[in-house]
Amino acid sequence: MALGEFELIARYFQRPENNSGSHLALGIGDDCALLRTRPGTELAISCDMLVQGQHFFADVAADSLGHKALAVNLSDLAACGARPIGFNLALALPAADPGWLSGFSRGLFELADAHHCPLIGGDTTRGPLTICITVFGEVPSGQALLRSGAKSGDLIWVSGSLGDARLALFALQGRLDHLTSLTPGALSAARQRLEWPSPRVALGLALRGVASAAIDISDGLMGDLNHILKASSTGATLEAQAIKALMRCTEITGQERLHHVLTGGDDYELLFTAPASASHLVASAASQTGTPVTCIGRIDATPGLRLLDAAGQPIHGNFASFDHFA
Amino acid sequence: MALGEFELIARYFQRPENNSGSHLALGIGDDCALLRTRPGTELAISCDMLVQGQHFFADVAADSLGHKALAVNLSDLAACGARPIGFNLALALPAADPGWLSGFSRGLFELADAHHCPLIGGDTTRGPLTICITVFGEVPSGQALLRSGAKSGDLIWVSGSLGDARLALFALQGRLDHLTSLTPGALSAARQRLEWPSPRVALGLALRGVASAAIDISDGLMGDLNHILKASSTGATLEAQAIKALMRCTEITGQERLHHVLTGGDDYELLFTAPASASHLVASAASQTGTPVTCIGRIDATPGLRLLDAAGQPIHGNFASFDHFA
Repeated sequence: MALGEFELIARYFQRPENNSGSHLALGIGDDCALLRTRPGTELAISCDMLVQGQHFFADVAADSLGHKALAVNLSDLAACGARPIGFNLALALPAADPGWLSGFSRGLFELADAHHCPLIGGDTTRGPLTICITVFGEVPSGQALLRSGAKSGDLIWVSGSLGDARLALFALQGRLDHLTSLTPGALSAARQRLEWPSPRVALGLALRGVASAAIDISDGLMGDLNHILKASSTGATLEAQAIKALMRCTEITGQERLHHVLTGGDDYELLFTAPASASHLVASAASQTGTPVTCIGRIDATPGLRLLDAAGQPIHGNFASFDHFA
Repeated sequence: MALGEFELIARYFQRPENNSGSHLALGIGDDCALLRTRPGTELAISCDMLVQGQHFFADVAADSLGHKALAVNLSDLAACGARPIGFNLALALPAADPGWLSGFSRGLFELADAHHCPLIGGDTTRGPLTICITVFGEVPSGQALLRSGAKSGDLIWVSGSLGDARLALFALQGRLDHLTSLTPGALSAARQRLEWPSPRVALGLALRGVASAAIDISDGLMGDLNHILKASSTGATLEAQAIKALMRCTEITGQERLHHVLTGGDDYELLFTAPASASHLVASAASQTGTPVTCIGRIDATPGLRLLDAAGQPIHGNFASFDHFA
């Protein structure tokens, strides 16, 4: 295979757009990229590393992997209410396979272009397939959405749908309960959620000045909500009926459904809180950006997480979320 | 192994310094870090990914790996004349080994502290050992050292010493010529160069307004000089005697010595050009920062690279530098 490192970069990753844009003083091709930020703004930075066998299957389509690697990073910007301005890509590849590279870069750049977020630099090397993206966003100083702003009495909201990504993961891993079988249509829809997540960038921007706290749901609703509760020194009460309604797949019911929604990661929806008095502003941000939102509970002063059934009775259970090292 | 992802971050990577510093509005612990840049400056960004078996041996000391992973990134900032302000760390680990993590973070933070460069965010996951650092630096707008500024007549300079890192690599891999044997002292000194490179940050800063072009030598002198020549649309003539003198190890001589210096990567010295009339400023930057510099040749209008012996006669040879995919 005669494709060298610099030719690989030139062929699949260097584009005219990489060296333009109002924030970019210098793009790919020097020791550093140079970024200009505008006065009165802060630069939001986030980084996610995806490893084969850990975050994706070896046989996943290259274009969906390119899409997802950027999507999970844009989702972090969305959770901060930051506007994407560029990203770095570090890529370890077992071999320089033109078919794979072509698919990967197509999926990557389709999403990058949709968000006006150029590739500004990176690194390529040989190694086990690993994708590390660092994304840069701009947010007016002091206006970033943080995890730490939730107050007792705030309502808790979730965008879009939850649980289907994990349902697809379990189905593909053969880990679904033996009584559960999915129709091909249901599996395909769930798999779409796993492999082609939509970062909620527009909603995140619309929630600036409205939401009191926000996070994106990557590890699971319970775990990610706990990050908000811990950072905000609050507790929460959630309604199981509203939570069950978040899943799209109708073929999973009861406790199994609740479990998938509460603990399933990989959805990349926004979880946020807002004062009850701001509910009309939340609804307006949702409709302006074409993003459905659901109220799933309320922030309490009492620490801990409580889950209530339709009759208002507490439900007990172990709802740990995903931890790479546990 | 009971150490979870969040505990791992808290124990080995979260420090009070991570959330302070004049540029940092928000450090580790939210969806994004928030960085402030000062008016009239640009943000320099660089990223390097190190993969076990490709960039380092499986049994390398964890502290030297922590040092080197950051050093190679700081070296890119040095080549741009940018002052370090923070870095991101993405880490894939086969297991959360406390002994390894403790050594790695010690080596990493000793260098970070020496350069007042706090860790501001990152990601940890399970996977084959892979370290991806993205470093951020600040440079006055328009003053970054680029690869593209070399002019015919400029002198070509190199900081420090070259070739010893690659000598150590070859010795450790058993790839040295069978007639070559290194004394234990020579191997140890060369290995220090391979495993504990010193990024030339102070020299890079001192060369702003002095050097016409700069790059750091990661892949080898010939290859990295070619990047300058290509970006600047120029050629160069190099003097073999000056180049041979760059190597510290005295046990390697002749053509083998020349070859190690010309093509050996991993030295992380600066290669830069400056007008001949600015030589006193180069000397002053070198002495101010305690960094030896050597003039190795001259930029020409004629494309291509020429290597001359002590008698001024051309030397021919194949001096390709390192390419991860060739």
